[in-house]
Amino acid sequence: MSKNDSPIAIFDSGMGGLTVVKEIHKLIPGKDIIYLGDTARVPYGTKSSDVIKGYAKQITQFLLTFNPQIIVIACHTVSSLALNFLKKNFPQILFIDVVSPSAKKSINITQNYRVAVIGTPATIASGKYQNLIKTLNPKIKIFSQACPLFVPLVEEGLITGDIPYLIAKKYLSGLIDKRIDTLILGCTHYPILKNIIQKVVGEDIKLIDASEVVAIKVKNLFKEKNMIEYRKEKKPLLYFTDITKDHKKIINFFWNDSKMIVRRIIL
Amino acid sequence: MSKNDSPIAIFDSGMGGLTVVKEIHKLIPGKDIIYLGDTARVPYGTKSSDVIKGYAKQITQFLLTFNPQIIVIACHTVSSLALNFLKKNFPQILFIDVVSPSAKKSINITQNYRVAVIGTPATIASGKYQNLIKTLNPKIKIFSQACPLFVPLVEEGLITGDIPYLIAKKYLSGLIDKRIDTLILGCTHYPILKNIIQKVVGEDIKLIDASEVVAIKVKNLFKEKNMIEYRKEKKPLLYFTDITKDHKKIINFFWNDSKMIVRRIIL
Repeated sequence: MSKNDSPIAIFDSGMGGLTVVKEIHKLIPGKDIIYLGDTARVPYGTKSSDVIKGYAKQITQFLLTFNPQIIVIACHTVSSLALNFLKKNFPQILFIDVVSPSAKKSINITQNYRVAVIGTPATIASGKYQNLIKTLNPKIKIFSQACPLFVPLVEEGLITGDIPYLIAKKYLSGLIDKRIDTLILGCTHYPILKNIIQKVVGEDIKLIDASEVVAIKVKNLFKEKNMIEYRKEKKPLLYFTDITKDHKKIINFFWNDSKMIVRRIIL
Repeated sequence: MSKNDSPIAIFDSGMGGLTVVKEIHKLIPGKDIIYLGDTARVPYGTKSSDVIKGYAKQITQFLLTFNPQIIVIACHTVSSLALNFLKKNFPQILFIDVVSPSAKKSINITQNYRVAVIGTPATIASGKYQNLIKTLNPKIKIFSQACPLFVPLVEEGLITGDIPYLIAKKYLSGLIDKRIDTLILGCTHYPILKNIIQKVVGEDIKLIDASEVVAIKVKNLFKEKNMIEYRKEKKPLLYFTDITKDHKKIINFFWNDSKMIVRRIIL
């Protein structure tokens, strides 16, 4: 890792990764954070592995110019399809992904060994979650479901009422029938639909929100290395490849203007 | 225009523009067609004008390498936000957009002078349709509504049943209350939801499908210039910036394998 006052870099396909920024900032407020949201090319979850790898490589090159200590991949699609590719291409930096901490957490909390994961079509088709959980504990039965409309619902802010409820029901009914007790929200957008999802699956199924899990992992990593200083709270520096009025509304849902710095970058 | 055996170039943000390719190919089957669908960066309709202009410029540069006779902008978002920009940057080529023929058609068929247009957030926010119709006929009352979930619904193939019906109802109820008699489907994806839309608005409201209107405009243009030769039917050459399994399914919905050539291009 580079020196102690270097920032933590975080990236995602769009706005969803701000949930991860928020959690990490809450746990380690004195650390500088650089974020890149690829809003000009979002969504990634319906694209091919080749295209996703190309975008992730470009973003990593951009983030490395800030000499970060680590790079957090806040996107489940990139974590599922491009983690090994990024590690191989950039051996000089430590990548923290969102898939492995969520998978581990699911193993720790399931009681009946029946776990499901929901995510974008690309994440689910990659089989990454399914294989990882099977490797960590072969006894676990793992089910999965792609939910392609959840990202556009969140981006439109349509997160209450009949429409998201019916869509959630369409995607999740099959999983309830499998008698799962743990459900991994395998996309950074999904925690925003947590209430609807919990209503559809019922209170007995535990939901895993990757943003919380990965923030704890990052904090522990810095604690181990004795690299947390309790300095003044820092403002996250947020880069986006596109900024529309709707984007501004979502950013302000997370922080007010005085608490962050927002910039546009063309990749 | 360049020489007679040069192709017609057509582009769109993704798969939707294939409706325009199909209509033009039907009317002028002996003309070569080059298509570019920017599936790696779709959707455009939620992005900013700057980003959309940059993508449209890159695509035009690519299409010009085929020395086309004309370039058809099959995307309403690009037609609304970047047509003047493209004309200024590429004065050597004739651009045909989808907005102006649809606007003209709406004026010809409305009986009560109350017209509405639906489209992506970027198309509707641009005010292009609204201003053009007002200029062509100031007596017409024009209403509009952005329908951001229609594109993801079509891309998921969720085009029948309760969910698209409820979503269409949410977007269109306000327009029915305005007593319109004509509705412009201002996005190349929307004709695929025609049945649902017609069901929601009722049989008395006429829907305008831009793909049909623009194909007639292109055919007439070639007829005027005496440039239609009734040669052997040509296979459309389709380029995409990304090709997934879902994309292949949609392409095959339009033509079977022997009727077209599909290629991937990185822009």
